[in-house]
Amino acid sequence: MAGLRIKGIVFDMYGTLVDVGAVAEACKEVAPEPVAFNTQWRAKQLEYTFLRSLMRKYRDFWKVTEEALEFAIQQFGLQVPPEQRKQVMEAWLHPTAYPEVEAALPRLKEKYLLAVLSNGTPKMLRTGLERTRLRSHFRWVISADAVKLYKPSPEVYRLALKHMRLQKNEILFVSSNSFDVAGSKNFGFKVCWINRPGIPLDPLAPKPELVVKSFDELVETI
Amino acid sequence: MAGLRIKGIVFDMYGTLVDVGAVAEACKEVAPEPVAFNTQWRAKQLEYTFLRSLMRKYRDFWKVTEEALEFAIQQFGLQVPPEQRKQVMEAWLHPTAYPEVEAALPRLKEKYLLAVLSNGTPKMLRTGLERTRLRSHFRWVISADAVKLYKPSPEVYRLALKHMRLQKNEILFVSSNSFDVAGSKNFGFKVCWINRPGIPLDPLAPKPELVVKSFDELVETI
Repeated sequence: MAGLRIKGIVFDMYGTLVDVGAVAEACKEVAPEPVAFNTQWRAKQLEYTFLRSLMRKYRDFWKVTEEALEFAIQQFGLQVPPEQRKQVMEAWLHPTAYPEVEAALPRLKEKYLLAVLSNGTPKMLRTGLERTRLRSHFRWVISADAVKLYKPSPEVYRLALKHMRLQKNEILFVSSNSFDVAGSKNFGFKVCWINRPGIPLDPLAPKPELVVKSFDELVETI
Repeated sequence: MAGLRIKGIVFDMYGTLVDVGAVAEACKEVAPEPVAFNTQWRAKQLEYTFLRSLMRKYRDFWKVTEEALEFAIQQFGLQVPPEQRKQVMEAWLHPTAYPEVEAALPRLKEKYLLAVLSNGTPKMLRTGLERTRLRSHFRWVISADAVKLYKPSPEVYRLALKHMRLQKNEILFVSSNSFDVAGSKNFGFKVCWINRPGIPLDPLAPKPELVVKSFDELVETI
């Protein structure tokens, strides 16, 4: 796209580069209503990241995910033994790359510096990127854990500047998540919203520079 | 309760002192699934307060409530003309006091300094407390608007100290909302959770000093 003038691209991890379908699968083993259970778990996980950031009571993303699981188990009135909880949690370490991502990244890497910036813990990111074989495409893998805050706190997005030694307007931030589109745009990045399901943009988010359906469309556009 | 040693009580407004049943009623006029619509609206309203606080992009609670309404209208694929949106919004200015609250407040006022501390705008709080005739029981009515942040940001709770000229541990903070119990406890207040529906405490929240089913039980206990 003419005029975008970026030097680096920063990607969100979960929901953007990779899917955590393994988590949805694992929920079938513990809950009679696995979809509703998983939805509640994910919503609470996100809420806890917001609340802990506001209260400045950081716990890492693994721990927050465990706490949200505990909440969902309580809400659904389930009995889940420790061994089974462990299995459900471990599914977070087995993400799947979205199908078009693997082919798109080398093409983007030819022209831009690439990084991942995620709420996930360093261990979750390392394991997930190794298992999906995406690791080698990224020069930097950055975890919010370094500032003990979560997105959309500006401090998290600032980590990318520090590592990449670029200006805000030289970076395209790519995310599927509305709150992350809002947060990164608010911080001052150029932003690409990956809108796979074709939903309307949350009115909270300022208009991103790009809206695409997939990584293929991103490659064709920039 | 022996040993609580408090001098003032600070109350959350919506869901704690007053119910916004009028909002639920008004939703019936705009949405075929009014309960789901209202739930989505309220969840988004709360999420926006968290996100705007984290991004330091404050808009007041009235505006945030309008934005969340817009989101819910989009999500449910509804067409709602401006006049009808205005009516639904106005319902926020017509809260109802929980039945036992009016009788309980004068008894608490005999022994303690009373205040309201809410995310609501000054106008929403003033109008709501006048219409429910609760206003005269409170020495202070404090809006988060003064610090352009929302609960559970510590800055909001700090407003009570400033107005009441009390120490953190001389104040009992009373709320029905889990995130507010977590935030106020985290700030350093003594906390009473009004648990009307008898649900389990969110694992995020540290254990409050008191858990009661109603204001009657609060009066009997302290």
